Amino acid sequence: MILTVTLNAALDVTYVVDDLVPHASHRVLTSYERAGGKGVNVARVLAVLDTPSTVTGLAGGTIRAGLRDELVTMTGDSRRTVTIVSRADGDATVFNNPGPHVDLTVWARFEARFTELVRDASVVVLSGSLPPGLPTDAYARLVRLSAGAGAATVLDTSGPPLLAALAAGPSVVKPNAAEIAEITGEDDMATAVGVLRGLGAHAVVASCGPQGLYAVALAGAWRAAPVRPLSGNPTGAGDACVAALAAGLHRGDPWPHMLREAVALSAAAVPCPMAGDVAADIYDEFRTTVSVEDACP
Amino acid sequence: MILTVTLNAALDVTYVVDDLVPHASHRVLTSYERAGGKGVNVARVLAVLDTPSTVTGLAGGTIRAGLRDELVTMTGDSRRTVTIVSRADGDATVFNNPGPHVDLTVWARFEARFTELVRDASVVVLSGSLPPGLPTDAYARLVRLSAGAGAATVLDTSGPPLLAALAAGPSVVKPNAAEIAEITGEDDMATAVGVLRGLGAHAVVASCGPQGLYAVALAGAWRAAPVRPLSGNPTGAGDACVAALAAGLHRGDPWPHMLREAVALSAAAVPCPMAGDVAADIYDEFRTTVSVEDACP
Repeated sequence: MILTVTLNAALDVTYVVDDLVPHASHRVLTSYERAGGKGVNVARVLAVLDTPSTVTGLAGGTIRAGLRDELVTMTGDSRRTVTIVSRADGDATVFNNPGPHVDLTVWARFEARFTELVRDASVVVLSGSLPPGLPTDAYARLVRLSAGAGAATVLDTSGPPLLAALAAGPSVVKPNAAEIAEITGEDDMATAVGVLRGLGAHAVVASCGPQGLYAVALAGAWRAAPVRPLSGNPTGAGDACVAALAAGLHRGDPWPHMLREAVALSAAAVPCPMAGDVAADIYDEFRTTVSVEDACP
Repeated sequence: MILTVTLNAALDVTYVVDDLVPHASHRVLTSYERAGGKGVNVARVLAVLDTPSTVTGLAGGTIRAGLRDELVTMTGDSRRTVTIVSRADGDATVFNNPGPHVDLTVWARFEARFTELVRDASVVVLSGSLPPGLPTDAYARLVRLSAGAGAATVLDTSGPPLLAALAAGPSVVKPNAAEIAEITGEDDMATAVGVLRGLGAHAVVASCGPQGLYAVALAGAWRAAPVRPLSGNPTGAGDACVAALAAGLHRGDPWPHMLREAVALSAAAVPCPMAGDVAADIYDEFRTTVSVEDACP
């Protein structure tokens, strides 16, 4: 079983407007609301892949993911994120709230629940920002608890929580180019990925937007790229990529296959206005055409 | 007493971001929530003016205006409006939901309640859009009920509900230039205002953005203009203008005085990020400097 962790769950609200014009008034044509947060979106993509997963994390208020969930309840309402989708170009503009302050007693309850849940997990996905109040080493602790239970970890976060977690030896970290530059201070991607591995990450999958993925693991290094660019909403692409990596680790796929799936599934998320959705036709097309090249230095 | 009617009440949510960049992800720095809808904002401005008012209309969910309210409850939640304020320039980008569908039995309950409330009113303010489900002549009916009870009416709406209400003889309508052009098809303001009066409006106060107001009533015609332009959030300026007109009608002020107050109060709303707020220093400065000129043809 894959366990996805969303410590800063959200109610994702999407407003569709004709075209986003700063400083103008807009009529909302359609609106959607659903549970979100990166780990919840990863679980949605896993459901599309028919890969069983369980959602855990911290949530408050009326958030229900419509997925198998073991969310730990906190006081206060989970944050809302608002996404404005322009019908004109399908592109998304996102507003992220930091989320409510979480009490350390809630965190202790979560760690206890996680320790139980991880026993049944082959892979643990740790995604997204930490809500205010949690210790910076929250992900580091969950990576250690996972390793202790024999589960692999895929970590998708940034800044100090990512830096703190590296020393705990996550199986895979999936930062994007900007996140890597932020914590390593290195512009050269190969050098920066080397730094992350030197700090403790077993493997690094760096997402480079439309250029695809650059991955370095014990078994080798690869570049995986889509055959053609897609326009739309890139916010869900990272979650789809993480879902593919988690599913690949769960099945024990070889790295090149796992990366091809990750690029194809990321690409399939781009045309969808809501994170967590993927376009089946794009996925089917890309998973046979994505190029994966050896990038060993 | 002034009675303000908000048939499409809202929970107004404001997100402050550094700068609004279409298609980017934004961190929300601060967020606010409060009851809104144009009539609620008018009542807020009236409270600043120490003019007693009562809020009525249709609301569902957890909306509480923090004002003296006689809102009629409907099933379902009131709509949310989202305003993004850029800290960089203080300017606002607004997203308006159409609101939930209202059952005709709720409308019948509201008409009954309104008929009671209007007995104590000297002025009735009818502001904003109609929620889906209400008859297009909803405002026309409220104008007639007000006239029957001896109350003056200030109507601030647009499109078919405005057109339908003109025949009922509202005391004052306050469309903006775009709304006037939309329903009359006339580009020339004086001609268009003549059309609105011909259709039944006793007086027309046309808001022309930073150029101020053009008003035609039985007693004459005037142009009232601010001495200098202000930058900020123009969304609350119309509600502040309506509040000044309602307060002026309530006191029986002469038109030139009423228009000077309306321009000053509109200007005082512009520097405020949230509709319903006014800046006291701007109001004090402008109410003595606004120019009011005779515009009789």
